[in-house]
Amino acid sequence: MSLGTIYEPIREDLVKVEDGLRSVYQGSPSWLSELLAHSLGSSGKRVRPALVLLSGRFCSYNLSRLLPMALAVEVLHTATLVHDDAIDNSAVRRGRATINKAWGEDKAILLGDYLLAKAEELAAATENLPVVRLFARTIMNIASGELRQSFDAFRLEQTRQQYLERISGKTASLLCLATESGAILSQAPQELVTALREYGYNLGIAFQIVDDILDFIGDEVEMGKPVGSDLAEGTLTLPAMLLLERYPDDNPVRRLFQNEGDRQENIRQAIELFRDSPLVEECYQVASDYHARGCRNLEVLPDNANRRSLQELAGYVLARKK
Amino acid sequence: MSLGTIYEPIREDLVKVEDGLRSVYQGSPSWLSELLAHSLGSSGKRVRPALVLLSGRFCSYNLSRLLPMALAVEVLHTATLVHDDAIDNSAVRRGRATINKAWGEDKAILLGDYLLAKAEELAAATENLPVVRLFARTIMNIASGELRQSFDAFRLEQTRQQYLERISGKTASLLCLATESGAILSQAPQELVTALREYGYNLGIAFQIVDDILDFIGDEVEMGKPVGSDLAEGTLTLPAMLLLERYPDDNPVRRLFQNEGDRQENIRQAIELFRDSPLVEECYQVASDYHARGCRNLEVLPDNANRRSLQELAGYVLARKK
Repeated sequence: MSLGTIYEPIREDLVKVEDGLRSVYQGSPSWLSELLAHSLGSSGKRVRPALVLLSGRFCSYNLSRLLPMALAVEVLHTATLVHDDAIDNSAVRRGRATINKAWGEDKAILLGDYLLAKAEELAAATENLPVVRLFARTIMNIASGELRQSFDAFRLEQTRQQYLERISGKTASLLCLATESGAILSQAPQELVTALREYGYNLGIAFQIVDDILDFIGDEVEMGKPVGSDLAEGTLTLPAMLLLERYPDDNPVRRLFQNEGDRQENIRQAIELFRDSPLVEECYQVASDYHARGCRNLEVLPDNANRRSLQELAGYVLARKK
Repeated sequence: MSLGTIYEPIREDLVKVEDGLRSVYQGSPSWLSELLAHSLGSSGKRVRPALVLLSGRFCSYNLSRLLPMALAVEVLHTATLVHDDAIDNSAVRRGRATINKAWGEDKAILLGDYLLAKAEELAAATENLPVVRLFARTIMNIASGELRQSFDAFRLEQTRQQYLERISGKTASLLCLATESGAILSQAPQELVTALREYGYNLGIAFQIVDDILDFIGDEVEMGKPVGSDLAEGTLTLPAMLLLERYPDDNPVRRLFQNEGDRQENIRQAIELFRDSPLVEECYQVASDYHARGCRNLEVLPDNANRRSLQELAGYVLARKK
């Protein structure tokens, strides 16, 4: 199912999200506006705003509260991408030059800070203090998840649990925030808030596992970024972990992490080894388990078009190629 | 007058600020705690928390609201220092290694993000939405001021007005936030809020001008960081602007910005030229004008120990050597 069909219940409001994102940069001086337009205006899938809006449709749908939150999560997501690209020294994102590549790393750091603050301002526009606190707490989780990843770079001894904690912080926490805040802002009862939060968490874990798989098997043109970047940064994702477990002798991931042999050649071999192995299916099975949990979380919600969209969105996340 | 004497009315509460800063890192996992302790635990002058607390003492002094705000402004200040050092590739701050030097730039970017979010969380603990919004807006002002500075690097054609706008964003806005939020959180009437905000602004401009002077004439050991760093980064501060105006021919700042001759030698000559010129006095006169405006702003406040502390603090800022 296409995103357009999944987004059908919120089609008109997603247009307002695009308008809102445009107004973030249209009111700024030209030198700032150019950077903001480059980062916010690109063709993102807008999964996070969609999660806020869909999660807000089960009780009292209040667009004046939900719209700033939908904008806030997308601006926050953009801020993290801008800083991630600066940290990883990435040159391309969504098929175009990153901020750090086009304007330099200093601009990327400062633009990311500006976007983080803009996101907080938008979150404050919900006028809901628990949501504002949740928002700040989520940024702390994202940053500490990324820090943990940075400290763990090129370490071979990592458990599946550590991997889950890391991706929970760096990815699932934001999807969780989107669904939970949507529910809170629509004054949903606690049972629904919990169900939507847990759906967001499980969706987020599935999302990141698929991301980690695509970093091995994805199509570079379709994704708009190179494959193998996790390995290049020394990030031990689920595919790399399984490769190490299954091929303990003479393993290209081990050689790469221990700085033995040619770096690029080790990455190439690791990707090839994974692509041609049953591990692809095994990783997808793990993602699929989280997808199934997410769908089960939705069962307490009324069976309507919004719930079906959330179900389909989980399916889309699992099947996506970019 | 020493800071200890100036801080006398809030001595006990500043101890609580230190306790609060410690609790930010003591509750974290060890790998994060170490970074937080390194950045927050250093011997800062705590000017910003002091401004919140002193500004909050003219009406209803409510420590449960003021303390989180005092912590928030110090954590925010620390976040900006961590990112600034990463951007400038600075090695030393307050006499010890910067985060980027000791742990790498990637850690510095992520720690700064964590601190920005922690600051927002603390601001939200004031439970005052206008203050939360003011806080987010201030971070946007700081980041866009720094961005402006980055875009203007090594540009010779800049007006005094542009300089003021830049330092207003990157420095004065935070001191302004400290005094204004202190006033708002103590439920001061609008006249006092305005007076304290404007005092904060004028103090902030004076503070930054003195900072820019010290980058030419300061003592490296006393300051705990090297002099000439603004010139090295191509930042045209008031001293450099006046040097260009006063010595239009064969000027070391012009040569440096136009990439002519030896870089270090141009910086050395610019510092020497400034130190031995009447421009030092002229720059201090500009700072002193803002100091005087700040003191005039205080005149509408009741004449008590708190007001005298704010006056003395302005004097301290003008006379400081580091």
